[in-house]
Amino acid sequence: MEEEEAAEIAARLKAEKLARILDEMEPDEAADLLGDIAPEHAAEALAAMEEAEDVRPLLIHADESAGGLMTSAKILLHKEMTAQGAIAYLRAVAPDTEDVYYLFVVDEDVRLVGVVSLRQLVVVPPWTRVEEIMGPDVIHVRADADQEEAARLMARYDLLALPVVDEGGHMLGLISHDDLVEVLEEEATEDIYRLGGVPEEHPPDVPIPAALRARLPWLVLNLGTAMASAVILSLFESTIARVAVLAAFFPIVAGVSGSAGTQTLTVTVRGLALGELSPHDGLRALRREILIGLANGIAVGGLIALIALMWKGTPTLGVVVGLATLMNMIGAGIAGALVPLTMQVLRIDPALASPILVTTITDTCGYFIYLGLATLVLPRLI
Amino acid sequence: MEEEEAAEIAARLKAEKLARILDEMEPDEAADLLGDIAPEHAAEALAAMEEAEDVRPLLIHADESAGGLMTSAKILLHKEMTAQGAIAYLRAVAPDTEDVYYLFVVDEDVRLVGVVSLRQLVVVPPWTRVEEIMGPDVIHVRADADQEEAARLMARYDLLALPVVDEGGHMLGLISHDDLVEVLEEEATEDIYRLGGVPEEHPPDVPIPAALRARLPWLVLNLGTAMASAVILSLFESTIARVAVLAAFFPIVAGVSGSAGTQTLTVTVRGLALGELSPHDGLRALRREILIGLANGIAVGGLIALIALMWKGTPTLGVVVGLATLMNMIGAGIAGALVPLTMQVLRIDPALASPILVTTITDTCGYFIYLGLATLVLPRLI
Repeated sequence: MEEEEAAEIAARLKAEKLARILDEMEPDEAADLLGDIAPEHAAEALAAMEEAEDVRPLLIHADESAGGLMTSAKILLHKEMTAQGAIAYLRAVAPDTEDVYYLFVVDEDVRLVGVVSLRQLVVVPPWTRVEEIMGPDVIHVRADADQEEAARLMARYDLLALPVVDEGGHMLGLISHDDLVEVLEEEATEDIYRLGGVPEEHPPDVPIPAALRARLPWLVLNLGTAMASAVILSLFESTIARVAVLAAFFPIVAGVSGSAGTQTLTVTVRGLALGELSPHDGLRALRREILIGLANGIAVGGLIALIALMWKGTPTLGVVVGLATLMNMIGAGIAGALVPLTMQVLRIDPALASPILVTTITDTCGYFIYLGLATLVLPRLI
Repeated sequence: MEEEEAAEIAARLKAEKLARILDEMEPDEAADLLGDIAPEHAAEALAAMEEAEDVRPLLIHADESAGGLMTSAKILLHKEMTAQGAIAYLRAVAPDTEDVYYLFVVDEDVRLVGVVSLRQLVVVPPWTRVEEIMGPDVIHVRADADQEEAARLMARYDLLALPVVDEGGHMLGLISHDDLVEVLEEEATEDIYRLGGVPEEHPPDVPIPAALRARLPWLVLNLGTAMASAVILSLFESTIARVAVLAAFFPIVAGVSGSAGTQTLTVTVRGLALGELSPHDGLRALRREILIGLANGIAVGGLIALIALMWKGTPTLGVVVGLATLMNMIGAGIAGALVPLTMQVLRIDPALASPILVTTITDTCGYFIYLGLATLVLPRLI
């Protein structure tokens, strides 16, 4: 069930009934749901919950922060326990939580000081002290960090659980591997949606009005940018009126460069998302994409020139179409690399803001270069 | 390091040196690497390896199958062991493998019959027999299944390890959670690349010739499909020559519908990839997208008609542009839903084949409807 749907249903339930359902949920998900409904209703439901104490500390964290993703760590080992003592303790509390595979070790102030795995506890001599076998450098995340940062850490170091601490290094809870998978899927889906011009993710069966709310504003924005191309075309109306055959090549000049721009954009956006590319590499990435645009432009531009010549029998038209494509392909490479890199520097999601800008640039430049060149050599085209 | 790079470096190393490196790698990754280099060189390296017996059985599985992803299960419990015996066994072998969190249970023929967690072994009375506490229905995957199927299973059931069996149910190995994360990232990246017109994934810093090999064929294919639009425009050359103002609205009619088609396509492709949508829901999805196209078409078409009227002062032009947009938006909804669903039925990756087809359909239909309508009412436009 999607978050919005769940919140709608939760809002309609009696507090008592909602509390029973929340008791069954993972604490991090219960906290997210409570954050999505009216505060007074949430407070009533929380008061009626049996496991309210697990959920309450999670409520202060933003939904998409590391803190919003964590569940409370039910089991913490003290650094002075023995391995045998720790196993007896585990046997006694018989935890059924997801967070038993790595056991985090704290000092007397509940500051995170180490980690042992259940495996280590089981395989060392029973009287070994936890402090002696624990790994002291624990990869952890601050509660106010972005959930994507937490997910990247877990993915990079193959972690099953990631401890979440406050600014003083005190253990607050942990993020488990199933949350990692969820966040990675969510972030990938968000990028795919945004690159596809759907700014807000929605499941395939969302009600039609909700689908329209997500998609229509984007189309209207698209209409606005398409107006820029329309204005350029309008400027060259007399050229088009005199050589109508020029219009036949619009989809080629604008379309193929648009595809080239989308290719560069895709590689750049995904590289930024996976951390394989950073704005520091900007100049190098730009130079690469200019060279790729040049090479693609020579190949595709040459081919287009040949097609135009053979189809319409006008060598000048071939040269104009081919040259315009070549120049626009280079522009597509520049725009496809520079726009997402700039967005990243400005802390705007490149997947969200870039596609429409890149298409607008390749379209308007394409029409301008093509019709500008045609106007320059107009007498030879008529 | 990327697979191709690793294979290139591996191919240059002496067999002895390569064997030392392979010994350090996870067996599943070593097997993949051996599969990427020349067979006789691979055989030499394998012969020089110390841990060849871990890698050898993995070599027969295809790289992207579940079998290609698995590592050997170093620890298997027999169903008649006691919990205490199992822990003593674990202590004795002191495994340092990743696969100790879930312990799979086999019978005397090494058929997979159950699973216990290390947690269960630790918390039950020591004399309990493994058979009594094991879960008998183990989620598993066949070695010849696709790696994405394995990843979806692990993600859906929050599994840390997924056992891989042959057709007789015999345990072959297991897939661990870090492989899951890798596969999910890989599949998402592949979809993003394919939707963006880069049929083959490559890192942002791949050498330029390799980038060209990945991107240029797609652009040439794009050129081919853009030719379809060019032919349509060519058919209406005399209409354009007489009413050159028509050309100003090309980017709007084709572009905005193209964006609407991409939106539908994105939602459909991602829904199919995540399993939220299946071809069985095809008719319902199609009806939804037609209705969304209709609603978007009325809104955007109306707006475009208004812009055309106010800008150019010709009511007939406004009606033609608006009506063409409305009709093409419905077509975009149909194409955006039907194309990926058909690809899925034909077992072609919808992310790979759909974008270019949908754009071609919205472009050619858009130009045809727009100029067709304009030609019908030509006397009123001049």
